[in-house]
Amino acid sequence: MTLATHPTQTRSTAAAFSGLKCKECGAEYEAKAIHVCELCFGPLEVTYDYAHLSKVVTRQTIEAGPKSIWRYRSFLPVATDNLIDVGTGFTPLLKANRLARRLGIKNLYIKNDAVNMPTLSFKDRVVSVALTRARELGFTTVSCASTGNLANSTAAIAAHAGLDCCVFIPSDLEAGKVLGTLIYGPTVMAVHGNYDQVNRLCSEVANTHGWGFVNINLRPYYSEGSKTLGYEVIEQLGWQLPDHIVAPLASGSLFTKIYKGFQEFTKVGLVEEKAVRFSGAQADGCSPIAQAYREDRDFITPVKPNTIAKSIAIGNPADGVYALDIARKTNGNIESVSDPEVVEGIKLLAETEGIFTETAGGTTIAVLKKLAEAGKINPDETTVAYITGNGLKTQEAVQGYIGEPLTIEPKLESFERALERAQTLGRLEWQQVTV
Amino acid sequence: MTLATHPTQTRSTAAAFSGLKCKECGAEYEAKAIHVCELCFGPLEVTYDYAHLSKVVTRQTIEAGPKSIWRYRSFLPVATDNLIDVGTGFTPLLKANRLARRLGIKNLYIKNDAVNMPTLSFKDRVVSVALTRARELGFTTVSCASTGNLANSTAAIAAHAGLDCCVFIPSDLEAGKVLGTLIYGPTVMAVHGNYDQVNRLCSEVANTHGWGFVNINLRPYYSEGSKTLGYEVIEQLGWQLPDHIVAPLASGSLFTKIYKGFQEFTKVGLVEEKAVRFSGAQADGCSPIAQAYREDRDFITPVKPNTIAKSIAIGNPADGVYALDIARKTNGNIESVSDPEVVEGIKLLAETEGIFTETAGGTTIAVLKKLAEAGKINPDETTVAYITGNGLKTQEAVQGYIGEPLTIEPKLESFERALERAQTLGRLEWQQVTV
Ligand SMILES: [Zn+2]
Ligand SMILES: [Zn+2]
Repeated sequence: MTLATHPTQTRSTAAAFSGLKCKECGAEYEAKAIHVCELCFGPLEVTYDYAHLSKVVTRQTIEAGPKSIWRYRSFLPVATDNLIDVGTGFTPLLKANRLARRLGIKNLYIKNDAVNMPTLSFKDRVVSVALTRARELGFTTVSCASTGNLANSTAAIAAHAGLDCCVFIPSDLEAGKVLGTLIYGPTVMAVHGNYDQVNRLCSEVANTHGWGFVNINLRPYYSEGSKTLGYEVIEQLGWQLPDHIVAPLASGSLFTKIYKGFQEFTKVGLVEEKAVRFSGAQADGCSPIAQAYREDRDFITPVKPNTIAKSIAIGNPADGVYALDIARKTNGNIESVSDPEVVEGIKLLAETEGIFTETAGGTTIAVLKKLAEAGKINPDETTVAYITGNGLKTQEAVQGYIGEPLTIEPKLESFERALERAQTLGRLEWQQVTV
Repeated sequence: MTLATHPTQTRSTAAAFSGLKCKECGAEYEAKAIHVCELCFGPLEVTYDYAHLSKVVTRQTIEAGPKSIWRYRSFLPVATDNLIDVGTGFTPLLKANRLARRLGIKNLYIKNDAVNMPTLSFKDRVVSVALTRARELGFTTVSCASTGNLANSTAAIAAHAGLDCCVFIPSDLEAGKVLGTLIYGPTVMAVHGNYDQVNRLCSEVANTHGWGFVNINLRPYYSEGSKTLGYEVIEQLGWQLPDHIVAPLASGSLFTKIYKGFQEFTKVGLVEEKAVRFSGAQADGCSPIAQAYREDRDFITPVKPNTIAKSIAIGNPADGVYALDIARKTNGNIESVSDPEVVEGIKLLAETEGIFTETAGGTTIAVLKKLAEAGKINPDETTVAYITGNGLKTQEAVQGYIGEPLTIEPKLESFERALERAQTLGRLEWQQVTV
C-alpha cells in the first residue's frame, strides 16, 4: 500500500448546499476542507438553500429514493453524483413494547444503528458522507481520530471506495474494535494516550500532511451525516416528530445534528412543528457534559476518561456546550450512569428486545431507565432511544456477567439432568453448573 | 425464566400456503409441526397455490410492502397477521467492482447478509419465519440445534417476541457466538460433541418435550425463510435473474431454497425465465457434498468435521443430495477450499469491498476465486456471491493473520517515524514493529 497524498481541491458544482458558515460569528467560507473560523476559531457548519429545498423536496421524492442515507441527499453536503453507497442508513425503528413495560412507559421506540451497514455503528453514516466529499475535494488518503467505531467505518468504506487509509486510535481499545479495523488493511496507529490526546496529535498531522481527516478538516461535512438519524425517525414514525429522544453524548455532535435534522424538516415543511425534548446519556467515568448540566454551568470542564464505555469517552467534547444548550432549551435532561449500570443496560435491551448493543447503547438504555424511574419521561410520550453500535465489538464489557452455557454430554439423560437444575436454580447460579 | 411447554396446535386459517408435501413420495399433510413423511421418511415441504399467487401478487404489491422479508409474505408459510418483524432481510446487494477486478471477472455482486438484522446472519430470515409459525401453532418454548448463528438468532428473536428459549450448540464454538447467544438470556446447552451429535440429541428432545425446534419439527416452515435470499436478488437486480450464484453449503438447505425462490418467481410470472448456474462452497475439513460431487456420486458419505469454518461444518447434511442435484442440472460446480484459503477469502473481501465476513463467507469467496481462476465463471456472467454471516463472531479465525497496529506516542515525531517505517516496510512486517 502507498499512502499517496494528492490534496488537489476542486470547487463544488451546483448543489443544495451553499458553503460553510461559522456557528459563532457567522463568517462565510467556501466549501473546502476547513473546519475552524479564521476570525473567531468557532466551528464551521454547512449551509443550505432551504427556500429552494422546500420547493423541490417532498415526502414522495424522498420515499422514491434509495433505501439508505442517500434518500436525503438534498440535505447532505455532496456536489456530485459519485456517491459512496454501501447501504448505510435506513436502519429499523423498532417498537419496543417489552422494554417499555419493564420501564413503566408506553410509547417507546429503538432506533437500531447496531445493525447499520457496513460496520454496525452510526459512524457509517458520517463516514459515507465524509468520504464522498473527500473524493470530491480530491483527497486520495483518508484518516481519522477514533474511539473505535469511527476507525472501523473509515477503514471499511475507504476499502470499498479504493481510498488509502490511515487511522489513529487509543492503544487500549477493545480487541473487537482493533481487529474490526485491521481486517480492511489500513495503516493503524495505536497511540499511547486517551482519545483527547489522539485527537490533538491528529490535528497536527492534518496540518502537516495533505490527508482528509474525516472528523478534523472534513468535520463540517462528516457531522452532517448524523442528521439522517433525525430524518429517518421522522419518516419511520409516519412523517411525525417524536416527543422525546434519548441519545448518547460523546463529542455532542450526534445530539446537535439530530436536532438540526428535526429543525430542517420542520423548516422546509416535510413535518409539522412540535416541541421535542432532547435527553443525553453519559457514563459516570466520562461525564463532562452531565456534570456541567448538573452544576448549571454553560461551559465544559474537561475530564480524564475512565469508563468501560470507551466509544463515548471523550473528555473534552467539541460540541459539548451546544448539546447542553439543546437539552436545556427543549426541557430535556442529561444524566450519567455507572459502569455496572451500563452492563445492566446492555443486558436489559438484549433480554427484552433481542438487540445486542455495545457499551454506548448500554449507557443510553441505563439513562433511559434512570429517567423513567425518576418520572422524567412522561409515560405517554413517544420516546425514541438511539442505539448507536453493536455489542459484538465490546464483548469484554459483558464477559463474566451473562452466565455460561450448561455443559452436557450428547445424551438425553444428561440433557434432562441439566434442564432440571436449570429450572430449579436461578439463572445467575447456572454459570457454575456442569452436569 | 420458566420453560413452560404448551404445544397446543391451531389449524392455519386462509393463506397462500396450503399444507405440507413429501419431497420424495408426494404424500400430503396438514400444516402442523411435523417434518418427516410417515410413509417414506422423506422431508416435508410447504406447498402453495401458485395459480392464486400469480393472480394477486405483482412487482408493485411487493414493492409497496415493508423493507424486510415480509414484503414476500404471500410466499411464506404464515397464516396470521401476527408477524415477528424486527427488520430482517432486504440486505444490500453490492456491486463488487474492486473484488471483480482482482478475480478477473466483470459483473460481480455480493449479497450481504453479514449485516442482516438483528443478529448479522442469514439465519435471522429462517428464524423470523419459524418463530412466527411457532407462535401460530401454539408453542411457547422454542429451541434449535445450532453451529452458532442459528443460536444467536433464535435467542434474539425469541427475546423480542417474549418466547422462552433453550438452544443447543457444540461446546467448542467461537467465543463470539456463545456470548452472542447468552446475552439474550436463553438456556444454553453446550454439548460435548459435533453438530451432528447435537442434532441427533435435539431430535430426541423434540420427541419427548413439546418444544418448537426451529430446524427440526418446524423445519419445513423454517427453511422456507431462505427463499427470500432468492427473491431479494431478483428484485435488487431490477427484476432479473442472475446468471450464476455461489453460496456456502452446510446442510444444503439454503442452496435448495434459493433455487426454489428463483423457480417460484419464474412460475408466477414475476421474472423472466433464465438458466441460472448454482455453485456451492465447502471447507476441505467438512466437504461431504463437494466430495460426492467430485467423485460423481449421487449419495453423501458423512464425514467428521475438522475446519475453522464451524458455522457450515455439518458432516451429515440433510439436504446434501438435493444440493448435488441442483449444481449438476444447472451446470454449476461444487468446490472446497483449505482453512488458510478461508482466511485469505475473509481478508480479500474486507480489503476490496469493506465487508467483514465470518469463516462461511471466507469459504464462499475462496471458492469464488478458485472457480474464477479455473475459468469456471464466465467473466461476463452476472454472478452473485452470498455472504451469510459477520466476521465479528469468528474473530479467532483471523487473529494472527492481519497484522498489529503500529504503537506510537502521542507526538508528531513518533508518528512520522512510524509512518516512514510503514511506507518502507511491507504490510506483513509491520506487525512486529513498535516505534
Ligand atoms: Zn467565526
Ligand atoms: Zn414420503
